Amino acid sequence: MKFYYTPGTVSLAVHIALEMSGADYQAMAIDFSSQEQRSDEFLALNPLGRVPALVTEQGVLTEAPAILNYIAAQYPQANLAPLNDNFLRARIDSFNSFMCSTVHVAHAHLWRGERWADSASAREAMAEKVPQNMTDCFNLIENSWLQGPWVQGEQFSSSDLYLFVVSRWLSGDSVELKQFEKVYTHHQKMLQLTEVQVLLKGLHA
Amino acid sequence: MKFYYTPGTVSLAVHIALEMSGADYQAMAIDFSSQEQRSDEFLALNPLGRVPALVTEQGVLTEAPAILNYIAAQYPQANLAPLNDNFLRARIDSFNSFMCSTVHVAHAHLWRGERWADSASAREAMAEKVPQNMTDCFNLIENSWLQGPWVQGEQFSSSDLYLFVVSRWLSGDSVELKQFEKVYTHHQKMLQLTEVQVLLKGLHA
Repeated sequence: MKFYYTPGTVSLAVHIALEMSGADYQAMAIDFSSQEQRSDEFLALNPLGRVPALVTEQGVLTEAPAILNYIAAQYPQANLAPLNDNFLRARIDSFNSFMCSTVHVAHAHLWRGERWADSASAREAMAEKVPQNMTDCFNLIENSWLQGPWVQGEQFSSSDLYLFVVSRWLSGDSVELKQFEKVYTHHQKMLQLTEVQVLLKGLHA
Repeated sequence: MKFYYTPGTVSLAVHIALEMSGADYQAMAIDFSSQEQRSDEFLALNPLGRVPALVTEQGVLTEAPAILNYIAAQYPQANLAPLNDNFLRARIDSFNSFMCSTVHVAHAHLWRGERWADSASAREAMAEKVPQNMTDCFNLIENSWLQGPWVQGEQFSSSDLYLFVVSRWLSGDSVELKQFEKVYTHHQKMLQLTEVQVLLKGLHA
């Protein structure tokens, strides 16, 4: 398989999952600074021009929640989802979907404002609201989602990878991670994982 | 099960899935005009204050892609996903994740702009960009996603419910559905389904 990623993006969650899976894959960096994600070659893989993308023997998969589910199903040894528990799998989907459609989107209004408005003043207004929106999202995670020690309780899952990666963005959004006690504890626990340490020292540094 | 929905929202996709599943469920309307989604009672089910939400014997599920996956897994007779094909299930997840995190979000900048900016002028700037963004999204769907006759080719899936429901929003976004030939044909095909006809004549009218 070929895995397309860019440091600093949500692709890190998938990268950790791949490391945990023991899958045979080649990591392909996409350079946002030279707009490589808009190159014809990459758009042929993902017409949306975003990472992550995973090229499998059967075809291309895009969108982090989908690729995480694929790795969970193909590589049960990665322990990313309880494959025989429909309800808990759906809870993982609920959290990951909230992360991609609400939390990641809230964050993107600081960094990718041009997606939703052309005027500079509108983009400034959007940027101003990001710290409060991210704080609101993480209060929800702290108080309603994160059961501890893992997001889904005793069951480690792909939701933990997602939360870990998005938590890393808080300081760039001018939000203090430490104020969310349970999330902070979770974050420290994630930093102990070998796969996380390897990627943060190397490709995702 | 209790299913919480509001006409005009993405909850319709889940509602069709429930009708197809043969599941025993009670439909509970949440009235946005009286801000019922912000009531203590509803926030106890979904602290994000959004529909759909599904209360099962094991707990609450939120977020359309997650509930669709749950129904697909619990009720194979609904034919919403090929449960033994990890790749195709992940392709369904890819499409549904794109719909929730990119297309639904693009649409929401016309109707829910207050989520991302406080100033009226910024919300106007966001609203102005919605027709182009939705056109771009649907061009992607038309040219890259929709294989025909169903989104995932010969395999009917929850992706078809998602596309059908979001397609219904185009006219409100000042975008002509008919310009997307394959999507329009898909839409007409969806309108033939008994479950769709029943809901559009009744609870979701």
